[in-house]
Amino acid sequence: MAVIYRVNMSDLSVRREQPSQQYQQLGGRALTSAIVADEVPATCHPLSAENKLVIAPGMLTGTGAPCSGRLSAGAKSPLTGTIKESNAGGQAPVALATAGVKAIVLEGKPADGKLYRLIVNSEGVKIEPADALAGLGNYDTVARLFKEFGQQVCCISIGQAGEMRAAAASIAVSDIEGRPTRHCGRGGLGAVMGAKGVKAIVVDPAGGRRPKPTDAEAFKKGAQKFSAALKKHPVTGEGLPEFGTNVLANVINAAGAYPTRNFSQGQFEGTEAISGERQHDVIIERGGKIAHACHRGCTIKCSRIYVDKNGQYVTKGPEYETIWAHGADCGIDDLDAIARMDRMDDDLGLDTIEAGATIGVAMEAGIIPFGDADGAIGLLEEVAKGTPLGRLVASGAEVLGKAYGIERVPTVKGQAMPAYDPRAAMGIGVTYATSTMGADHTAGYAITANILGVGGKVDPLKPEGQVELSRNLQIATAAIDWAGVCLFVSFAVLDDPSAMEGLCEMLGGLAGRPFTADDFLAVGKQTLMREREFNTAAGFTAAADRLPDFFKTEKLAPHNATFTVPDEELDKVYDFAD
Amino acid sequence: MAVIYRVNMSDLSVRREQPSQQYQQLGGRALTSAIVADEVPATCHPLSAENKLVIAPGMLTGTGAPCSGRLSAGAKSPLTGTIKESNAGGQAPVALATAGVKAIVLEGKPADGKLYRLIVNSEGVKIEPADALAGLGNYDTVARLFKEFGQQVCCISIGQAGEMRAAAASIAVSDIEGRPTRHCGRGGLGAVMGAKGVKAIVVDPAGGRRPKPTDAEAFKKGAQKFSAALKKHPVTGEGLPEFGTNVLANVINAAGAYPTRNFSQGQFEGTEAISGERQHDVIIERGGKIAHACHRGCTIKCSRIYVDKNGQYVTKGPEYETIWAHGADCGIDDLDAIARMDRMDDDLGLDTIEAGATIGVAMEAGIIPFGDADGAIGLLEEVAKGTPLGRLVASGAEVLGKAYGIERVPTVKGQAMPAYDPRAAMGIGVTYATSTMGADHTAGYAITANILGVGGKVDPLKPEGQVELSRNLQIATAAIDWAGVCLFVSFAVLDDPSAMEGLCEMLGGLAGRPFTADDFLAVGKQTLMREREFNTAAGFTAAADRLPDFFKTEKLAPHNATFTVPDEELDKVYDFAD
Repeated sequence: MAVIYRVNMSDLSVRREQPSQQYQQLGGRALTSAIVADEVPATCHPLSAENKLVIAPGMLTGTGAPCSGRLSAGAKSPLTGTIKESNAGGQAPVALATAGVKAIVLEGKPADGKLYRLIVNSEGVKIEPADALAGLGNYDTVARLFKEFGQQVCCISIGQAGEMRAAAASIAVSDIEGRPTRHCGRGGLGAVMGAKGVKAIVVDPAGGRRPKPTDAEAFKKGAQKFSAALKKHPVTGEGLPEFGTNVLANVINAAGAYPTRNFSQGQFEGTEAISGERQHDVIIERGGKIAHACHRGCTIKCSRIYVDKNGQYVTKGPEYETIWAHGADCGIDDLDAIARMDRMDDDLGLDTIEAGATIGVAMEAGIIPFGDADGAIGLLEEVAKGTPLGRLVASGAEVLGKAYGIERVPTVKGQAMPAYDPRAAMGIGVTYATSTMGADHTAGYAITANILGVGGKVDPLKPEGQVELSRNLQIATAAIDWAGVCLFVSFAVLDDPSAMEGLCEMLGGLAGRPFTADDFLAVGKQTLMREREFNTAAGFTAAADRLPDFFKTEKLAPHNATFTVPDEELDKVYDFAD
Repeated sequence: MAVIYRVNMSDLSVRREQPSQQYQQLGGRALTSAIVADEVPATCHPLSAENKLVIAPGMLTGTGAPCSGRLSAGAKSPLTGTIKESNAGGQAPVALATAGVKAIVLEGKPADGKLYRLIVNSEGVKIEPADALAGLGNYDTVARLFKEFGQQVCCISIGQAGEMRAAAASIAVSDIEGRPTRHCGRGGLGAVMGAKGVKAIVVDPAGGRRPKPTDAEAFKKGAQKFSAALKKHPVTGEGLPEFGTNVLANVINAAGAYPTRNFSQGQFEGTEAISGERQHDVIIERGGKIAHACHRGCTIKCSRIYVDKNGQYVTKGPEYETIWAHGADCGIDDLDAIARMDRMDDDLGLDTIEAGATIGVAMEAGIIPFGDADGAIGLLEEVAKGTPLGRLVASGAEVLGKAYGIERVPTVKGQAMPAYDPRAAMGIGVTYATSTMGADHTAGYAITANILGVGGKVDPLKPEGQVELSRNLQIATAAIDWAGVCLFVSFAVLDDPSAMEGLCEMLGGLAGRPFTADDFLAVGKQTLMREREFNTAAGFTAAADRLPDFFKTEKLAPHNATFTVPDEELDKVYDFAD
């Protein structure tokens, strides 16, 4: 049975623990949130020894279920002060599951302030000094580790931002090519890893074995059904492999929900130049790669490899939200500059959404003008140098906005909004406002019914139906994050009953008992309530479940829309407790 | 009857308003908090047009009551997010009362982002452009205004920090000599004034007349009794005039409650060099001035004029908390350097407590070493330049601590603790934790019974009795801040029944009806409950009524004390609603 490793960074000890009956049924976000809620004092300082960083593969991760290679990281967030889970793909999730790891719990804090690395395999976890890695970006860090440990391992690491304990620091997970391109980006979990003094976790799956479903036949049947549904759906079967996540740029821009220049307009005149279609052509022309998987076992392949004019590797993707953050939100329409910033973010270990949104606020503050790509790159260079300006950029939009006395700061609970303006897609606004995670599109991706016509239709410009839409998606997403499947399977799950059937059959096959859609949603509800209780204990009330006022007062072109979902409605999102 | 001026900075209009029956009975903090609670949306952005900055003299201000020249400023705080009142002495309070001003309410926000000045006299309020004052410190600002308007006016102004809308920005009030030395320091109200585009308020009392008590005889009798009590008490009659507020340095250091090097020790080896006694000798030797009043009508005279080796004016005081913040808290024992920083703070328009505490955190972060006076001065120079580091210093300890990933940040609700370590004076710890204002010693100055033996004795190192002590002081203080008398009258009020009698007789004489101590405390209770309700609506819960964890876990030398008042006890502070 998979075990939980308690890694105490105060006394540098490791304890191997059999998961409780309850924890055995949990994985991914459900497990990270349960451990954090059960064990971390809600009012503790996120960088203190009392906080815990929990890393856990999903329930299905490693079983061979399609698109199930997700890794959840959870802790009390230095960015938001809430409970936080952020998940990523890459190779480490399956490797951890193969090494028999249910979760790694980083506890305490080294008294000497030094850096360490963890070596994880099926035998256990070793803590080793890692001062030699101090100050390195993620690219150099993993390059050294792969050189030392071989290509069969995977790396989970932090860059300079995490070492600086910056509130926008991410945790990088290495991909198939051994590059640190997949990130648990949101909420500053890299800062928690930095505070624990852990620079990198090397996961070696050799000698381990993949988790085996109890009912292999039922599992296999479900996996085939699930896989077929993913292939059949136009988003997961065609759009995402062909154009990547950035297929959304033109779509969201056309809907007038593409936040431009720090959320001052809903359409960007430079969208064409940074669209998924253009990105596709550039990549093909230069000999990069489209339809690239972020981990083995992914059938959607939304990632890509972006290369420069000479065909040399620059970065993965970049993803839609990254291109938006460093692009439209900053008035920048230069795809190469954006790709360079994506690479810098990945190397620094910085959430691309928060980094771009913060630069957007820096532009609002007049530090550099909107549209200044060189200036934006310069701001990221400051992060690596650890200058005061770099610290501000790495601390996120809210802190930079406060330091510069800026009112128009697009955050909820201290976290920057991603690439969808809540005035022109009110369902996502409900998610931003009420998610247990702060402004987070992945917590309840209402763009589906608001704009994409997936899972029904809800008029994005009217308040009606948004709360129900967001609530249902938040519940389903929490369950998806438990299962450890990629959120993108939702497109198929929402539209095609056979996808949900396949998913339940896999989960039932894994456990060796019948598993229904209601069982699935029950896990989501339970996770959300647990997270919500933590936040309440941490001091969050309905007053924090609100968008900044300017979304209610400033009209967004071209629809002249404001966010009009009433506060009383927002307060009903969690009215689902049984 | 005194009137309320509504100054709308959005459309640059002024409306003269008769106060409601309810507001007629209010003044000072009770009035600022009532208007803010009644009119400002609790969840609005503090720098938005929705916030209001209310400036109001106290009930007794201008009546000739001894030590009654206090001016309250109130708003939603950019530093804490709570309701906020901060009061100061100086000449403007009496001048405003004389000009028939009950309150000035700054509303809205100029669309053009330009700077304005207000000219206030008994005729009304005029709004004039003030771009010529942009970028000036308070000293230059008021010098220009006095030159233009003559020495009979008073000035209320902001420096560069307020213009930058920095969260630690203060509002300066000019003193008897026409210097901007008295500040509504705490909570960043200068940033709200800056966001309103108001650089300065010129108050001309000429042509006005002082408020007249309804029962002049009763009032006079009360004033004499009150004055006699102030003269008789050793603190207000001797200690404060002779040694100023900094008489506390040796006392608090001896008690082991003098926070040293960012609250890491309770005694500072350099205390003697920065003590009130030493300060007294230096001032006398150099031909400065002790026993100096901050406004006409003050009989305590705790201020002083600090001069350099050549006898040239440097700054007022400095006060105990300032000398601590820039001194012991930063490991600095150079009185001249501290005086220079006090002058810089006053000129920049920066809260000296927040500025010093922020530099202490900067030292903890390793930006400069503890004890580096030149480095500390350099950090304040950055503020004037508006550099990223300067912005951080002007944003307060919490923001700088977050940007540098520091766990040991001594704040409550985002506001830095002042000069008393809550582990060695637990009563003040209760006030820090539970005050409606964030960490604020003046909100309930439990040092009285904890250390000074004034108003009874409560062992500072034991949790027992601290909640009751702090509660009673918080109630009494809110009433004192309504009356507009200097908080230092409390020493006499707590020890000598005739002081309270005199105060009530003055208040009764003013209103022309009997006024009891219970009436007095009722105003305090009502004010606190109103403030508390605002904070609750703004999203504050019991979770915010806590000290940072390190005060509960790190032992403070020399007593090896931790803060041990239980959370459940802290939650009883407001159990006084009738």
